[in-house]
Amino acid sequence: MKTDIEIAQAAELWPINKVAATVGITETELEPYGYDKAKIVLDEAKATSTKLGKLILVTSINPTVAGEGKSTVTVGLADALAKIGQKAMVALREPSMGPVMGMKGGATGGGMAQVVPMADINLHFTGDFHALTSAHNTLAAVIDNSLQQGNPLNLDPRRIIWKRALDVNDRALRHITIGLGGPTSGVPREDGFDITVASELMAILTLAHDLMDLKARIKRIVIGYNYDKEPVTVADLGVAGALTVMLKDAIKPNLVQTLAHTPVLIHGGPFANIAQGTNSIKATKTALQLADYVVTEAGFGADLGGEKFLDFKVPLLGKTPDTIVIVATVRALKLNGGADKNSLKNEDLPALEKGLANLGQHLRSMARYGVPVVVAINRFTTDTDAELASIEHYVVEHGHAAYPVTVWADGGAGAENLAQALVETTQQAHVFNPLYDFSEPALDKLNKIVQEIYGGAGVELSSKAEQQLRTYAKLGWDRLPIIMAKTQYSLSDDAKLLGAPRDFKIHIREFVPKLGAGFLVALTGTILTMPGLPKHPAALDIDIDEHGVITGLS
Amino acid sequence: MKTDIEIAQAAELWPINKVAATVGITETELEPYGYDKAKIVLDEAKATSTKLGKLILVTSINPTVAGEGKSTVTVGLADALAKIGQKAMVALREPSMGPVMGMKGGATGGGMAQVVPMADINLHFTGDFHALTSAHNTLAAVIDNSLQQGNPLNLDPRRIIWKRALDVNDRALRHITIGLGGPTSGVPREDGFDITVASELMAILTLAHDLMDLKARIKRIVIGYNYDKEPVTVADLGVAGALTVMLKDAIKPNLVQTLAHTPVLIHGGPFANIAQGTNSIKATKTALQLADYVVTEAGFGADLGGEKFLDFKVPLLGKTPDTIVIVATVRALKLNGGADKNSLKNEDLPALEKGLANLGQHLRSMARYGVPVVVAINRFTTDTDAELASIEHYVVEHGHAAYPVTVWADGGAGAENLAQALVETTQQAHVFNPLYDFSEPALDKLNKIVQEIYGGAGVELSSKAEQQLRTYAKLGWDRLPIIMAKTQYSLSDDAKLLGAPRDFKIHIREFVPKLGAGFLVALTGTILTMPGLPKHPAALDIDIDEHGVITGLS
Repeated sequence: MKTDIEIAQAAELWPINKVAATVGITETELEPYGYDKAKIVLDEAKATSTKLGKLILVTSINPTVAGEGKSTVTVGLADALAKIGQKAMVALREPSMGPVMGMKGGATGGGMAQVVPMADINLHFTGDFHALTSAHNTLAAVIDNSLQQGNPLNLDPRRIIWKRALDVNDRALRHITIGLGGPTSGVPREDGFDITVASELMAILTLAHDLMDLKARIKRIVIGYNYDKEPVTVADLGVAGALTVMLKDAIKPNLVQTLAHTPVLIHGGPFANIAQGTNSIKATKTALQLADYVVTEAGFGADLGGEKFLDFKVPLLGKTPDTIVIVATVRALKLNGGADKNSLKNEDLPALEKGLANLGQHLRSMARYGVPVVVAINRFTTDTDAELASIEHYVVEHGHAAYPVTVWADGGAGAENLAQALVETTQQAHVFNPLYDFSEPALDKLNKIVQEIYGGAGVELSSKAEQQLRTYAKLGWDRLPIIMAKTQYSLSDDAKLLGAPRDFKIHIREFVPKLGAGFLVALTGTILTMPGLPKHPAALDIDIDEHGVITGLS
Repeated sequence: MKTDIEIAQAAELWPINKVAATVGITETELEPYGYDKAKIVLDEAKATSTKLGKLILVTSINPTVAGEGKSTVTVGLADALAKIGQKAMVALREPSMGPVMGMKGGATGGGMAQVVPMADINLHFTGDFHALTSAHNTLAAVIDNSLQQGNPLNLDPRRIIWKRALDVNDRALRHITIGLGGPTSGVPREDGFDITVASELMAILTLAHDLMDLKARIKRIVIGYNYDKEPVTVADLGVAGALTVMLKDAIKPNLVQTLAHTPVLIHGGPFANIAQGTNSIKATKTALQLADYVVTEAGFGADLGGEKFLDFKVPLLGKTPDTIVIVATVRALKLNGGADKNSLKNEDLPALEKGLANLGQHLRSMARYGVPVVVAINRFTTDTDAELASIEHYVVEHGHAAYPVTVWADGGAGAENLAQALVETTQQAHVFNPLYDFSEPALDKLNKIVQEIYGGAGVELSSKAEQQLRTYAKLGWDRLPIIMAKTQYSLSDDAKLLGAPRDFKIHIREFVPKLGAGFLVALTGTILTMPGLPKHPAALDIDIDEHGVITGLS
C-alpha cells in the first residue's frame, strides 16, 4: 500500500494557473510560488462581491489516537462535489511544522483525498508562518530593547505577557529566563515561547480584512502592563508599521489543488485547542466569492473548532454555514466507548454503542445553531456492516442522516452520496441561532459554552482568573468573545474522560487577553501553548534521497 | 532626493524569466517566486560545466559609521560591465532581517545601483533564512527532547554547544536558562540564541554542493559532548534526513535583477565578522557557469570577508578571483585618520592622509595572494578634488590603480572606467599564493592571519582556548581552517583602534568547532554572535500604506 507522501509525489499536478482558471482567477490575480503554489489577490470587483457560494463546515467528534480523517473527508467531499458537476473549492488551514516534525503529522488529507504539493504545504509552504514567527519575535526584541534602553514606557518586566514564538514543538522553551549575562545583554526576567500557531499575530492574520485592518489590529495588541498596571500596546512601542510590512505577503491567501485538481485555498493555521482553529476570514470569503460550494473545516472536535467557528468566525465572516458535517469513525467511537486501542480491528458493538454518546453530544451542540447537520462516517476497511448500521441507526434516531464515505481509498468517488445530499441540505432555509452575544458578561459566555456545547455543569475559576475578570470588567475587556483553550480529547478539560461525561466543571486557570485579535483566551485544565516532542519524533523517520524524493513525511 | 526604497519601488522590473533568458537560463531551470524572483536549478550539462567566467571580488577598507557602499559598488560595477557590452552577473549574500529591523539596514546596494525587488530581498525573500531558522531550532528541540526522554546518548547538559537561532537582533536571548517549570517541561540548563546568519547550518548551506553533501555535512555537526567528553553529532541524533528535507529548497540559488536588469544571484548570508562572510559556493559557481564576468563581494573589510574568501572559499570553489577590488571612500578614510564624524563634509587632507594607512594595510594583505588588486573610490558629492587626488596618489605609489566611481548617482554609467580596467586586469595571468595550508597547526594559521592580514604581532589565547586546542589536536580538529570572529571596525580586536595599528595581539577567548561546515571559529575580543537593537531601531521608521507602498526601509 502506498504511503500518503508516495501518492502525493507521484501525482501529476496541474500548473497552478490552470487550476486558478477553473474558478475564474486570472493571471494578474496570481503570484506564483513555483509552478504549483500561488498567492492570490482578487481584483476589486471580485473582492467586493457579495454574491457568495454555499458554505459547508466539516467538524468531528472528539479526536482519538485512531484518527478521524477530518481533513481527508473535507478534501474528498470537495472532489465529490466537483465530480457531480458543481463548482467547488476547499478552504483549509496551513499545517504547523512543529507537529509535522513531532507527533501529529501534517494536515493535507490522506490517501486519494489529499492536497498537493503535500511536502511543501507541510513544510515552509509560501512562508506565511515564518513571516509570523519573525514579526512575533521582532516585537519581543523591541519590548526587551525598550527595557534595556531606559524603559521609557515604565514597563513592568514581571507583567510582560507577549512571549516569544517558534513553529517547533519544544517543551524546553515553555519556561525560561532571559536577559542574563550582565548589563549589555538585557534585563533579566521570566519568559517563554509559544508555538507560532498560538501567536496573537496568527489570530490577527486570520481575521484581518486588509493591510490597514491588520495594522490597526496589531496596534491594539496588549504586550504587558506598566508599573501602574495599565496596559501597554504595540501602538505605544511604535512598531505596528514594521510588523505589518513583515506580514504584507502573508495576508494573501494561498492557492493549491487536490489530487483531482479541485482548487484549494490554504491560509492561516491557528490550532483549535489553543486559538480560534479555523482558516482565515479572507480565504473563506475569497473561496465563497469564487465557487458555488466551499468546503471548510474547523480544528479538532465540534466542541473546539466547531464552536469557535460558529460563535466567533461567523459574525466576522458575515455568513453562516449552510450545512455542518460531523465526521465520525467506527474506530474512534469504539475508543470513546472504552475499547482497547489495540483491538480496534475487531467488531465491538457494545463499545461502539457506548461511544455513540460522544457523537450524540456533538449532534446536539451543532444542531442548536439551527443549521442543517449531517454525519459523515469515514470508513475503514475493518469496519463491519453491523457497526456501520449501528451508527446510522443512532444518527437517524436523533433526527439526522449519516453517509458512509470512502474518500481515502476512492477520492471524490467515495463521497458522491454525501455530496448529493449536501446540494439539497444547503438549499434549505435556516435561521442561525447564536449561542451568545459578545456583549454578555464573560462568565455567562463561559457557562453557555460548557453547558450547551460540552454538556457540562459550568466553569470554575482559579483565584487568578477571578481577579483577571474583575480587572477586565473595569477595562471593558469582559465583553470580548471567548476562545476556550481546552484538551481536544475530551468534552471536559480532562483528556482521559472520553465518551459524553456529565456534571463536570471546566477549570479556568488563567485568561490571556488578545485585544488585537479581539478575544479572551481561557486556559483550561493543563492545556499548553507550546507542545513537546514525543519519545520517537516524526523527524527521526523523515529523509530525502539524491533525487529529492522524500520519505516518512505524513 | 529620492530614498532607496522610493527608487526601488518606482523601478520597472523585467519579468524574471526575461532576466533569466539574458544568461541562457531556461523556463524549466526556473522556479518562480512571484514575477520578479525565482530559484534556479541548472540542467545537468550547465551545472557540471567547467568553463567558468572571470571572477571579480569586491572587498573594502574597514567599515565605519560613514558607510563604504561595498554592495552599491558591486552592483554598479556589474551594471557597468553590462553597459560596455560584457555578459555580467552579480553574486551576493542575502540580507539578514535582524539588522534590517535594527541598525545596519539591508544589503541590496543604494541609489541607482540597487538590486530589486529591494523590500522583498531585505525581508523574507524566498524563505531561505526561515528554513535555516526552522531546521536549526528543530535540531535544538530534538536535543532537549533527548535529554527529556531518558538521555540515551548520555549527553552532558552542561556541554551542549548547539544553541538556538533567530533572525532577530535580540540581546535578551544571548544568555538564557531553559527547561524550567518542572519535570514535564524539560531539563533545566543554560542556553542562548545566535542570530541565524551565525548558525552552522547557514555556513553549511553556503558550502554544500548538493543535497547529499548537505546531508553529509549536517550529520557531522557536533552538537555537544557526552559525560565521557566525547563529541556527539547530528548523526547520533538521527535527524539529518529531516533537517535536509527542511532545506531542500533553500539550497537552490535565488535569481533577481539590478535596476538595469543585470541578473543577480543572491544566496546565503553568513556575516563576515562571525562566519565566513560570503555568498554560497553554489551561487558563485552557477554565476561563473552562466556569465563571462561575475562580480561578488565578501563582507566587511578585506581583513574579514576578503581573507575568508581567499583562504577558505577559494579552495572549495576551485577558482581564484581574477581581480580584487578594494572599495574606499574619502569619508571613511578620514574617520580612520581621526576626523570627527560630524565634520566629514569638510576637506581634511591631514586626516585623510593619516587614514590612508588603513587602505595601505588592506592593499598589502590582498596583494600578497598574487591576484591583481585595484581600488574603487566610491565618490560622495562632498569629496574634494584634492582629497580624491590624494587617494589616487597613495594607491599609485603603492603599485596599484584607483578608479573613482559614482554608481550611487549614475548606476552602471558611473563605473565604466573601472569596468574597462577590469576587463584588462582579469586577463592577466596570476599565480595564487595561499596564506596557509589547512593542515598547518591551528596556532600557525592564527598567527599568519594576524601578522600578514591584520598587520599585528600574533594571537594570545585564553586558558580556555588553549585547553580547547589541546583537546582538538587529539581529535584532529586543529587541522581545520580558521574563521576569525572579530570586530569589523578595526584591524585589531578593539573596535576603537582605527587606521593601521601595529604590534597588537588578537585575543582569542574561545573556539567553536563547526565540523559540518568544516572550520573552527575563533571568537576574539568581545565579538558577539547575537547583535542587539540600538536605542532607535530601524523598525520604528518602517511603515506601509493601504496601497502597499513601503517607507523607511533601507
